[in-house]
Amino acid sequence: MDFSLFESVLEESQIISGDGLKVRYHHIWHMDQPLKALCLLLPETTEEVSNIMKICYENDLPVVVHGGLTNLVGSTETDGHEVVISTERLNNIEEIDTSSRTMTVQAGVILENIHEAAASADLLFPLNFGARGSAQIGGIISTNAGGLRVLKYGMTRQLILGLEAVMADGSIISSMKKIIKDNSAYDVKQLFIGSEGTLGIVTKAILKLEEAPNSRNAAYIGFNDYHKVVTFLKYMDSNLAGKLSGFELIWRNSYVQMTSVSDAVRPPLPYEYNYYVLIEALGSHPQNDQIEFQVLLENAIEKEQVLDAVMAQSPSDVEWFFRIREDVNNLVDFMKHDQHFDISLPIPLIGQYIADRYKSLSQIEGVEQVFAFGHVADGNIHFMVGKTNLSPELKKQIDHCIYDGLKEMGGSVSAEHGIGTHKKDYLKLCRSIEEITLMKSIKSIMDPKSLLNPGKIF
Amino acid sequence: MDFSLFESVLEESQIISGDGLKVRYHHIWHMDQPLKALCLLLPETTEEVSNIMKICYENDLPVVVHGGLTNLVGSTETDGHEVVISTERLNNIEEIDTSSRTMTVQAGVILENIHEAAASADLLFPLNFGARGSAQIGGIISTNAGGLRVLKYGMTRQLILGLEAVMADGSIISSMKKIIKDNSAYDVKQLFIGSEGTLGIVTKAILKLEEAPNSRNAAYIGFNDYHKVVTFLKYMDSNLAGKLSGFELIWRNSYVQMTSVSDAVRPPLPYEYNYYVLIEALGSHPQNDQIEFQVLLENAIEKEQVLDAVMAQSPSDVEWFFRIREDVNNLVDFMKHDQHFDISLPIPLIGQYIADRYKSLSQIEGVEQVFAFGHVADGNIHFMVGKTNLSPELKKQIDHCIYDGLKEMGGSVSAEHGIGTHKKDYLKLCRSIEEITLMKSIKSIMDPKSLLNPGKIF
Ligand SMILES: Cc1cc2nc3c(=O)[nH]c(=O)nc-3n(C[C@H](O)[C@H](O)[C@H](O)COP(=O)(O)OP(=O)(O)OC[C@H]3O[C@@H](n4cnc5c(N)ncnc54)[C@H](O)[C@@H]3O)c2cc1C
Ligand SMILES: Cc1cc2nc3c(=O)[nH]c(=O)nc-3n(C[C@H](O)[C@H](O)[C@H](O)COP(=O)(O)OP(=O)(O)OC[C@H]3O[C@@H](n4cnc5c(N)ncnc54)[C@H](O)[C@@H]3O)c2cc1C
Repeated sequence: MDFSLFESVLEESQIISGDGLKVRYHHIWHMDQPLKALCLLLPETTEEVSNIMKICYENDLPVVVHGGLTNLVGSTETDGHEVVISTERLNNIEEIDTSSRTMTVQAGVILENIHEAAASADLLFPLNFGARGSAQIGGIISTNAGGLRVLKYGMTRQLILGLEAVMADGSIISSMKKIIKDNSAYDVKQLFIGSEGTLGIVTKAILKLEEAPNSRNAAYIGFNDYHKVVTFLKYMDSNLAGKLSGFELIWRNSYVQMTSVSDAVRPPLPYEYNYYVLIEALGSHPQNDQIEFQVLLENAIEKEQVLDAVMAQSPSDVEWFFRIREDVNNLVDFMKHDQHFDISLPIPLIGQYIADRYKSLSQIEGVEQVFAFGHVADGNIHFMVGKTNLSPELKKQIDHCIYDGLKEMGGSVSAEHGIGTHKKDYLKLCRSIEEITLMKSIKSIMDPKSLLNPGKIF
Repeated sequence: MDFSLFESVLEESQIISGDGLKVRYHHIWHMDQPLKALCLLLPETTEEVSNIMKICYENDLPVVVHGGLTNLVGSTETDGHEVVISTERLNNIEEIDTSSRTMTVQAGVILENIHEAAASADLLFPLNFGARGSAQIGGIISTNAGGLRVLKYGMTRQLILGLEAVMADGSIISSMKKIIKDNSAYDVKQLFIGSEGTLGIVTKAILKLEEAPNSRNAAYIGFNDYHKVVTFLKYMDSNLAGKLSGFELIWRNSYVQMTSVSDAVRPPLPYEYNYYVLIEALGSHPQNDQIEFQVLLENAIEKEQVLDAVMAQSPSDVEWFFRIREDVNNLVDFMKHDQHFDISLPIPLIGQYIADRYKSLSQIEGVEQVFAFGHVADGNIHFMVGKTNLSPELKKQIDHCIYDGLKEMGGSVSAEHGIGTHKKDYLKLCRSIEEITLMKSIKSIMDPKSLLNPGKIF
């Protein structure tokens, strides 16, 4: 192709092609593969993104946006004939408004930098997950990321007040408002949230911040019955009045594996329970909050709601507790090949569903390990399945074992990670024909030439 | 028209026409006007709504849905050539799931009935506003209603997990899931939320419930400087760690009027301050929460952050405090003719903006009173303007006085109430051409014959 097209709108240093692409990597899970693309562009402003899109639209060039490349569903994959737009230089934090409690950012700002900037203004951007050091806010918005604190603060969708995006034809659509309430007709910015770069390119956002909490408490709790986990969730949530911020469930065998590789992840509780819950509460009064949290746990033990509990006694304990849950490499490293899932289903059904899957997965030849854990308070469970080989038949068998029946239970094949390329075949398991038809017609009006992230989702 | 069309899909008693329409009223603000419509239909199931729409689609009949008819923007108005579908018989609460903390309801269930059903299961549906005795959940969803507790719990959009709707052609689109997280492609249900019946007819929803709070504290606080109001909001929000649920601001002259008509709304604080804030906190420990709330107020007085404060000492005090704010009739009754506004703008700009509007409105001939108050923590202010006559010129002059400059400040002409017919002319003041173009193309694919609530919004 003729790169001089882009030279009219970008500096030379913003256009990477040929051998230059070999040093740009594809995906954090596949660091060894060079990027396949026509070229990679590094815009620094919304106008540059708009100008790039005008050229691509005119010349029918397909476009894939690369944020932090931490997605887990192949949604940034390319096959060589696409223009890749990287947002890494759209990395400016434009404003922190402490009265409106908002932060205005370009799409390429990394989540961890947002956390730090908010903290320096005594505020909190609550979204948090393992990939915070790489994931960018544009990618986060485009995947409607969730993470560890959805229970208290919601998914990304709930945290976006304003948005600016570039449409397929290069026009700029801007809804950059700092206001919480805007019912002036359709809330079109919702379309860009969670659409994995298929409807437009997010260039800026106004994020909703919260007052920073002053106290953080955490504990591990042991259970043998799933229904007691659900009762305990209700008990803590109703007694902590808005302070409960995390409620993670780990099945016994996952807990054993997660806590046995090093002293940094030593087990806070012994290995005798069927279920381990990690809870977190964020508050504003360090002393009172700690006492309240402790008393609630003591009462739960006394009333035999829970079998055992251990509370973090220091910030480093809290870190230790979370490292166990967050460092999924301790599971991945243990498997020859892994296949992972990110399903959601109604909370009361989870216990039986997982028990059934453990049983039926164990009967599949080639399956070596099954690890379940997840954001149970959000109905969101992760599965990691270890297997002996990469055969497509085995993959399909495992997929079916996990996904079959999910539709009837009102579940979803993707709670958080999106569809990308990996889950395209299963979209119809949790969306009706009417829903998919409507999605496709929206796609067709917003991206009539099918240039934006082609081949993803549908 | 030939009503027998509908007789094939509905009972006779579900079809009202001719003289029958005279006993059905148009709008709670215009109780004296009979309904103008081809006929009024009273479906009881989603299938009936679907069958009605198939007939309307085939016969090019425009349709207006009537929920509780409490909207304030003329969005249920008819001119006589429409089929009106009332949702009043779609009034079944289908399920309360205490573990998932969800309620499944048909579109016609009244908000107050939802409150009661949730409370009977020790749960809370937090959305709350003055019209709760009439507004129906379908209308609430279609307007993305807000109200008094958005600060803690969000707008309607944040409280809807599942949705079912009938499209213009009668097809049923269903996303009835109890799960908090579902990133399986585009979240199409967002389109129906806040679109005022122009994209589809909501027939069912799954609502997200919260654990019911056990404590409720409230206070009135007096200020002279607007910026101290903002500082106090941050102070309370950061110290109450998620418990602050309401933060309403009333300008002095509005407060005087609101508290001077009867003993039931007597003034909790004297008339000497420029601003009166009503705050509410919801928690789970009645005794501790009350002490905490009181200490926070005492400290604020000591540090001269606030001039005066009075705390509700009993549930009946809380009711008294809220009646003052909620009973807007105490303002309306006082005006010859009234014109009301529901704008939003960034919190730090509100003080100056309102001061400027008071000044410029007072210079318009025909303006007799100006009352400002609102959900200031959400950046949402209501204006009630009393005037001597109904001339269109005066209306326009007042509109311009309120709306001019709002765009530049990043505000909205409708924080909560929607556009309907009343604000159509002003939509472009807070939405760009690109946004409106996108909205119209979405409308054109979802309602290609323009049958759904014609003439509204655009
Ligand atoms: C260790 C680890 C833990 C994780 N934990 C979680 C978790 O708890 N919860 C969770 O939700 N996810 C989690 N993820 C997944 C991932 O981090 C998120 O999906 C994240 O939001 C992706 O952000 P990114 O910047 O890396 O996007 P990318 O991977 O670069 O892109 C993701 C998608 O968005 C598109 N895109 C990127 N930027 C833009 C833009 N500006 N405009 C339009 N489209 C764009 C891409 O084309 C692609 O389709 C985890 C990942 C890892 C590696
Ligand atoms: C005293 C008072 C106080 C109020 N306070 C607030 C407040 O604090 N916050 C706030 O947000 N609003 C407030 N409102 C406005 C109003 O109550 C809300 O807009 C409410 O959500 C409307 O619900 P409804 O059932 O009355 O809808 P309706 O007035 O019947 O309809 C509203 C719109 O939705 C459409 N519609 C209704 N049902 C459906 C359906 N099933 N499917 C598709 N479209 C449908 C209608 O066609 C119309 O366009 C207040 C109103 C009053 C009278």
